[in-house]
Amino acid sequence: RSLATSAVSTVKIGLIPADGIGREVIPAARRVLESLNSGPKFEFVDLDAGFELFQKTGTSLPQETIDTLKNECHGALFGAVSSPSHKVAGYSSPIVALRKHLDLYANVRPVKSVNSPAFPNQKLLDMLIIRENTECLYIKSEREEVDANGLRIAWADRKISEYASQRIGKMAFNMALTREKLRSEVPLAKRFWKHNPRVTIVHKSNVLSITDGLWRETVRGVKQKNAELYKGVDMEEQLVDSMVYRMFREPEAFDVVVAPNLYGDIISDGAAALVGSLGVVPSANVGDDFVMGEPVHGSAPDIAGKGIANPIASIRSAGMLLEHMGYTSQALKVYDAVDAVLADASILTPDLGGNSSTNDVTEAVLKNLT
Amino acid sequence: RSLATSAVSTVKIGLIPADGIGREVIPAARRVLESLNSGPKFEFVDLDAGFELFQKTGTSLPQETIDTLKNECHGALFGAVSSPSHKVAGYSSPIVALRKHLDLYANVRPVKSVNSPAFPNQKLLDMLIIRENTECLYIKSEREEVDANGLRIAWADRKISEYASQRIGKMAFNMALTREKLRSEVPLAKRFWKHNPRVTIVHKSNVLSITDGLWRETVRGVKQKNAELYKGVDMEEQLVDSMVYRMFREPEAFDVVVAPNLYGDIISDGAAALVGSLGVVPSANVGDDFVMGEPVHGSAPDIAGKGIANPIASIRSAGMLLEHMGYTSQALKVYDAVDAVLADASILTPDLGGNSSTNDVTEAVLKNLT
Ligand SMILES: CC(C)[C@H](C(=O)O)[C@@H](O)C(=O)O
Ligand SMILES: CC(C)[C@H](C(=O)O)[C@@H](O)C(=O)O
Repeated sequence: RSLATSAVSTVKIGLIPADGIGREVIPAARRVLESLNSGPKFEFVDLDAGFELFQKTGTSLPQETIDTLKNECHGALFGAVSSPSHKVAGYSSPIVALRKHLDLYANVRPVKSVNSPAFPNQKLLDMLIIRENTECLYIKSEREEVDANGLRIAWADRKISEYASQRIGKMAFNMALTREKLRSEVPLAKRFWKHNPRVTIVHKSNVLSITDGLWRETVRGVKQKNAELYKGVDMEEQLVDSMVYRMFREPEAFDVVVAPNLYGDIISDGAAALVGSLGVVPSANVGDDFVMGEPVHGSAPDIAGKGIANPIASIRSAGMLLEHMGYTSQALKVYDAVDAVLADASILTPDLGGNSSTNDVTEAVLKNLT
Repeated sequence: RSLATSAVSTVKIGLIPADGIGREVIPAARRVLESLNSGPKFEFVDLDAGFELFQKTGTSLPQETIDTLKNECHGALFGAVSSPSHKVAGYSSPIVALRKHLDLYANVRPVKSVNSPAFPNQKLLDMLIIRENTECLYIKSEREEVDANGLRIAWADRKISEYASQRIGKMAFNMALTREKLRSEVPLAKRFWKHNPRVTIVHKSNVLSITDGLWRETVRGVKQKNAELYKGVDMEEQLVDSMVYRMFREPEAFDVVVAPNLYGDIISDGAAALVGSLGVVPSANVGDDFVMGEPVHGSAPDIAGKGIANPIASIRSAGMLLEHMGYTSQALKVYDAVDAVLADASILTPDLGGNSSTNDVTEAVLKNLT
């Protein structure tokens, strides 16, 4: 999967800003990729998707976007998508569809503090949430019927497969080892995780004994079947409700956290509250031969168009794109540049208590890019 | 449903301590009910349930417990139930089953701060989470199949009905009004909610457009169909992922929060992290003619038997039992006694940073009971 070790010299990236502030933060991330003085040459292609597109054209994800990504691109950056505030017939979320079309089966979401005066009483955490990205309730298999009294009953199917649980489980244990290795390159002061690598499996098998039972058993099985390889990785479990509780009390107790789709969605937004703002939390949708970076935040209609959206989540997502394409040293440069801006804390967007613009923060990151 | 206004003079309460610290905190709650110098006369009956019972007898919820509750009791107090750490054939959670058997369709979970030196940098919040208690993934309709490659696939059904959404929606709007009324009896310094009554509807209809779409539409409909009655109650919505984020950033923005079963489970544990400890958060499982108080915490095997479990969640749950049976002034006495102990902050169990015992805290509450 690593492009870095292959013969490709130009890397083609699809840019899908989609709605709202997506249009402001994706260009910022692009500038950072363009400014790297090592690594691949980038070629960018602008692609359409989103709720606003749906309102204009009746489709939220044109076939052309999918085809271009599949046939021409090595990776992509996705902005954010608006949710209709009322039920809209025929609309469905383009991001959920893209994950499925490209088989991007893992949603990797690092939530990491920066030691900075901008975040006074902050706990120092460095967790990586790995969210299963293809099934659970996100298969969107739903239907409605009417009961004997004429009242409506709606049903949704939740799917958990051994196949998907296994590959996401492997990714979790592998990432625990990779992180352990990468930590050796990170200065001591920035290594917030001081224990053995650890994988925490999130589930609710006390209620969902069959679906979450299969999930838990399969993910546990990954370690059991590769006992030698993963012998240095500790494994623990947490019921999803306790997970949210514990994450807020002791976020420093988590290294890699692996969760089914919906729990992963909730946990990652929750974790974002611990590091100052959703505006700094990136993600990568990762498949076997494609990566799509995506900030965890939404389209933020309240601030869209004002030039004050925090570009950090998208810039870090571009870093993750590099990392998962195999350009580790370039990725680390991007992360370090962002960390330097946060640690300095003089140029911050309003979500972090500052009064700088998207552009100011982007410039500051570029200046720190070595 | 109000017993207080009926002819009943003796109120019979089933006590189901179940597992672990349930056996320590339920007796504490009983002592508080017995010590009230007004209100009904109580009669208590001890009933069995739990995982430990299952290990001994093969059943986690004897028919006798159900029958006694249904035929003889006016209400109940449930302790906590342990979850097996591995898959156990034939076991299923007695608390989920009891909610169903007694049609306790609402799980009412107040999360409220106390202005106290015990909780220095605490935000002052006073939210009431109303969790739908009978459906969603908790119907436990699950099955497993094998795919063409011999790999396992598990399925669960998620049910959302108009019937259940409507009655829980009504409860949410009614509770918003009741709370508004009760606030007038609470000293100003303890009224943390200063706005119009507000109901926040939690859902994920951007993905689950049919099930959560029905949920959202039905709960919104409750206000629309009773526009006059609920005209003073503001209504807003929050996607479940943003809800967890926002709850941690601005918990003071929430009054009544109404959520489908699983989201409600997660949100209420999360909210508990904001008020010091799960050990202070009570709940009531409420039906049309039965109430079962239940602390939100679990059986805490790590501290069971040590006499240091926090009895406050159970004592407050006993208060909720009184409140939902119609004994409002007695309920307020219990809440006030607990608040006084927390505000004083000299007698606290270890979960709140103190070193007092279950018994010490119970005595302190009894002393403050006027
Ligand atoms: C927009 C929505 C469909 C999406 C999701 O739930 O996956 C978002 O919340 C996210 O986390 O990327
Ligand atoms: C023990 C478990 C089945 C239960 C639930 O999920 O409802 C618990 O977490 C609760 O919140 O009361």
